Amino acid sequence: MKTDGDPKIVSPSTIRKASRLGQFSGPTSGLALGKAQANLVILPHEAAFEFLVFCQRNPKPCPIIDVTDPGDPEPKQTAKGADIRTDLPLYRVYKKGQLVDEPSDILNYWRDDLVAFLIGCSFTFEHAMLSAGLPLRHHAESRNVPMYITNIQCTPSGRFSGPMVVSMRPMPAKKAVQAVEVTARYPRAHGAPIHWGDPTVIGVENLGKPNFGAPTPLTSQDVPM
Amino acid sequence: MKTDGDPKIVSPSTIRKASRLGQFSGPTSGLALGKAQANLVILPHEAAFEFLVFCQRNPKPCPIIDVTDPGDPEPKQTAKGADIRTDLPLYRVYKKGQLVDEPSDILNYWRDDLVAFLIGCSFTFEHAMLSAGLPLRHHAESRNVPMYITNIQCTPSGRFSGPMVVSMRPMPAKKAVQAVEVTARYPRAHGAPIHWGDPTVIGVENLGKPNFGAPTPLTSQDVPM
Repeated sequence: MKTDGDPKIVSPSTIRKASRLGQFSGPTSGLALGKAQANLVILPHEAAFEFLVFCQRNPKPCPIIDVTDPGDPEPKQTAKGADIRTDLPLYRVYKKGQLVDEPSDILNYWRDDLVAFLIGCSFTFEHAMLSAGLPLRHHAESRNVPMYITNIQCTPSGRFSGPMVVSMRPMPAKKAVQAVEVTARYPRAHGAPIHWGDPTVIGVENLGKPNFGAPTPLTSQDVPM
Repeated sequence: MKTDGDPKIVSPSTIRKASRLGQFSGPTSGLALGKAQANLVILPHEAAFEFLVFCQRNPKPCPIIDVTDPGDPEPKQTAKGADIRTDLPLYRVYKKGQLVDEPSDILNYWRDDLVAFLIGCSFTFEHAMLSAGLPLRHHAESRNVPMYITNIQCTPSGRFSGPMVVSMRPMPAKKAVQAVEVTARYPRAHGAPIHWGDPTVIGVENLGKPNFGAPTPLTSQDVPM
């Protein structure tokens, strides 16, 4: 990606443009610090109400940032001029629950009945964590955060249900309370942690084997959070 | 309404039961202090997604407390065992924008495709205002709060659009900042005021003529808020 300076402070529109031109396809942790980051879910209109109610019932894992009008690829409320079909680094296309494609744009998949949901992402509060002097071990390792399926069931809505997934950032024990305070200020980016301390309490048995992302080693002073 | 003590602290389930039995049909300001109050909107499933997106885009006037599954009259997330068709003091039925009925229950109107939305209500933070020593002039007058149509346009979603409506509580000028602080802690009950001071700034020309509710006189120390 061509940047106009430090990639950590490169603007969201620069990242979107680089993604649109096929010049960037990586994870966005550590980019555009200080700006809201989001996850993308696209569904047919037929399933959109059920899913939006699922998000309303589970605001901790699924804080809604923006919802597009059916068929409109522009997230007008949050990123005027952006195109949801081309401006993300990479997409995953699922059919009947199976991953069928991982394209760099979804122009060929777009339909007039599709609705896009932008859901808050914990990358958003990493800037505030760094500013507060809280370490981000996955930045030092240049890896994506590890993510785990917990034993906490979300409140279902129609066909949508399932366990909560959490990301984990190792934190020095003496800074853990401060990390709760800083992240709690970002409820639309998941906010404060679900838990810190013993991961088995939320059903995570092996921190070394995340369900998604890359494992992040803990130092002897760290607690998982 | 038969109450088990002071009506101000009567429980929500007692108010729902009295409404169900036809023993109560008044406004609920000042009742069940300390509990969340809500407004009710019921729409066919066909319009439910558009309306929920309207609420997502306008969280200040339309903070969502609960959404029922289509056809289910029980607001399971917030009031287990309640029946949305009978447990409110009074209903208004609209057809093509026209008020056609004002029944005490809607059992005859209920359909399998109806979705109920509970939307946060400013009555919720009145308990906190009283506890903080902030006056509620409409309580003293035993009236509903006055409400006004402003010149602030909501962000549309499909067929749903229109200006924001505000309630007004006269507040001693020296307590106005404190009133902002107290109400700001209740974002799901509209939170802090949209404005205080000169009502013409938000398009309200005559405080004596509210669009809904009853006018509330200001003392010489009060500002409209």
